[in-house]
Amino acid sequence: MNIFSKTEYEQRLLNTKTAMVKQGLDVILLADPANMNYLTGYDGWSFYTPQVVLVVLDEQEPFWIGRAMDANGARHTCYLAGDHIIGYPENLVQTAADHPMRFVADFLKERHWDKRSIGLEKDVYYFNARWLEELQQAMPLANFRDCSLLVNWVRSIKSAAEITYMQRAGKIAERAMQAAIDNIAPGVRECDAVAEVYRAQIRGTKEFGGDYPAIVPMMPTGEKTSAPHLTWTDEPYKNEQAVNLELSGCCHRYHSPLARTAYIGRNPPRKLQDLAKNVVDGLNLTLDAIKPGISCEDVELVWRKHIAKFGLKKDSRIGYSTGLNYPPDWGEHTMSLRQGDKTLLQPNMTFHMILGMWLDDGGYECSEAFRVTETGCETFANFPRKLLQI
Amino acid sequence: MNIFSKTEYEQRLLNTKTAMVKQGLDVILLADPANMNYLTGYDGWSFYTPQVVLVVLDEQEPFWIGRAMDANGARHTCYLAGDHIIGYPENLVQTAADHPMRFVADFLKERHWDKRSIGLEKDVYYFNARWLEELQQAMPLANFRDCSLLVNWVRSIKSAAEITYMQRAGKIAERAMQAAIDNIAPGVRECDAVAEVYRAQIRGTKEFGGDYPAIVPMMPTGEKTSAPHLTWTDEPYKNEQAVNLELSGCCHRYHSPLARTAYIGRNPPRKLQDLAKNVVDGLNLTLDAIKPGISCEDVELVWRKHIAKFGLKKDSRIGYSTGLNYPPDWGEHTMSLRQGDKTLLQPNMTFHMILGMWLDDGGYECSEAFRVTETGCETFANFPRKLLQI
Repeated sequence: MNIFSKTEYEQRLLNTKTAMVKQGLDVILLADPANMNYLTGYDGWSFYTPQVVLVVLDEQEPFWIGRAMDANGARHTCYLAGDHIIGYPENLVQTAADHPMRFVADFLKERHWDKRSIGLEKDVYYFNARWLEELQQAMPLANFRDCSLLVNWVRSIKSAAEITYMQRAGKIAERAMQAAIDNIAPGVRECDAVAEVYRAQIRGTKEFGGDYPAIVPMMPTGEKTSAPHLTWTDEPYKNEQAVNLELSGCCHRYHSPLARTAYIGRNPPRKLQDLAKNVVDGLNLTLDAIKPGISCEDVELVWRKHIAKFGLKKDSRIGYSTGLNYPPDWGEHTMSLRQGDKTLLQPNMTFHMILGMWLDDGGYECSEAFRVTETGCETFANFPRKLLQI
Repeated sequence: MNIFSKTEYEQRLLNTKTAMVKQGLDVILLADPANMNYLTGYDGWSFYTPQVVLVVLDEQEPFWIGRAMDANGARHTCYLAGDHIIGYPENLVQTAADHPMRFVADFLKERHWDKRSIGLEKDVYYFNARWLEELQQAMPLANFRDCSLLVNWVRSIKSAAEITYMQRAGKIAERAMQAAIDNIAPGVRECDAVAEVYRAQIRGTKEFGGDYPAIVPMMPTGEKTSAPHLTWTDEPYKNEQAVNLELSGCCHRYHSPLARTAYIGRNPPRKLQDLAKNVVDGLNLTLDAIKPGISCEDVELVWRKHIAKFGLKKDSRIGYSTGLNYPPDWGEHTMSLRQGDKTLLQPNMTFHMILGMWLDDGGYECSEAFRVTETGCETFANFPRKLLQI
């Protein structure tokens, strides 16, 4: 059931341990499901109860610790030896009286690891404030440090196998976008169009099926295009309206997001057409500038200079690192294509560049997911870059 | 765009403030997207960046504080006055250098609320350890207390309008289950069957569309039925195998989960048929015992006594409170149908009762979502309770 070779997992672990040594960490406790997956292969929708992966510098393999009910799933999906998969009892689940982190603390204390320098992912979605307080109380001697993003940074350069999954995700994204275009029409309810997008995302292709993306399809229309994260309603699409389509393909948890704006009707406003042209030109220009050695902020500058010519500016970042992830986000929270991010691009870093401009009465967005190559960049999906018409 | 009347939101707020007074809290800072929605109407997939709802005892309305980009969405979905919707600037998003909780702290300090008794939802998914540390650092004078589940408990008794949405979710769950039965067949890839389930979940019915459930459809088959939270693969279904189907309908974020086991093939093993009969009889018996005034643990006892007759026992709880929710869980984390939970049932409490027994070579599960009525209970879906055959 392993999605990657054991050698690949071992390489990831080695890279992680190298980063731990640099930061003076003996033990790290990972709560981000993507980081847990990356280092062990674990893949299940069980992150709604506490679960962690422990990496200990002088232990050959990580430990997976989760609910007993999910230890079977760990045995199915992890490359780990059986005694590195630890289930905690059911009575710790969702009760005020006890907490799984006390079990984790006992596990560390029995091995005398509680007096060492322990990294905690304090700034990830599922490591909540109570986990921290439980651990602090149970291990007063530990030297806790913040190791948020340590593994995320290790993840930032993708292997050949990871790139393959992202390329597949790109093919799925094309199909999902086409399903949107094929199914949106005046009078069709938003939910019915979204249903077809979902179906395409999960069916994937004949050669490979789709996995659930970390974010639901976003398809706001009309005045809601100014509210990018509202989901769909039961309302029908109307004629002579724009719809922003932001969705992703996903393959073995690897994402390739894709965004476009489509116009429902034969007569898109001149202003929207002009905006679309300027944004697409800017996207093309900015992608052309991508190559190893250029910095994230330099990439953003290409875009900023381009749209300034039309009297426009965009406050938010124009892209971010993406790849392996779980809800609620497909971004990796490391690099952002924005002013101030001086990270230099390297081959097989992977990004979602999303260029959107909103004017008072609507907007246009267009995006590509890509990898940095030895000489430039390569996008994962192939879908017309223009104002699509329905 | 409001899904409920303003009067209903005001009643919810009043109930919340009453609970705050009982616990000696002047201010609560809510991070659980379901609680934010419950008290303001806010609904968007924006919980991947920090956002909160503040309830202040002597302020008439709550405050929504989130990313500036999402304040438009708040204006669309919240019943709040415009000056109670506060957007923080884009440069606070996903950066090590700053944090949205500093913005929240400044907001509280400007109003001199930082010296008061402030409840934090320390044990919810999105309130991570860094949020806590940022708030503690920025407001050294505050008396922080844990208010996890305070609003969840207010949510435990549903209004007539909430029940209507859960009934609709039950109708959607029937359709999603039927889509699974209609599409699973030997040789069909798991992903293709799941795609049809998703489609049915989002299409809903002609009268009302579907919303995304907080958990993806779980449809493990073969040996994976012992690993309940693994998601699907590209593998084809095989003949003479059981498949466990656990899914939900969702309407305006209100859930009605439904689980069944189906057998692919004409000759389900005698042992599985017997198990199915025992579990279904137990489900019927246990549902019959539901009425106001009985405790959660007494409900569980009915089931436990029944299956003990067949030499069986189940360690995990047999149900939990459900309703309004966001990924990663549709459970409300308040009541569990298990030993030790002495909560007394009241009319319009809503639960998902899920009875599953796993033997060495497979298992059977069957569930119902229901509300407690004045005299008994009423299930939201209507789907045969038996070992389904494909």
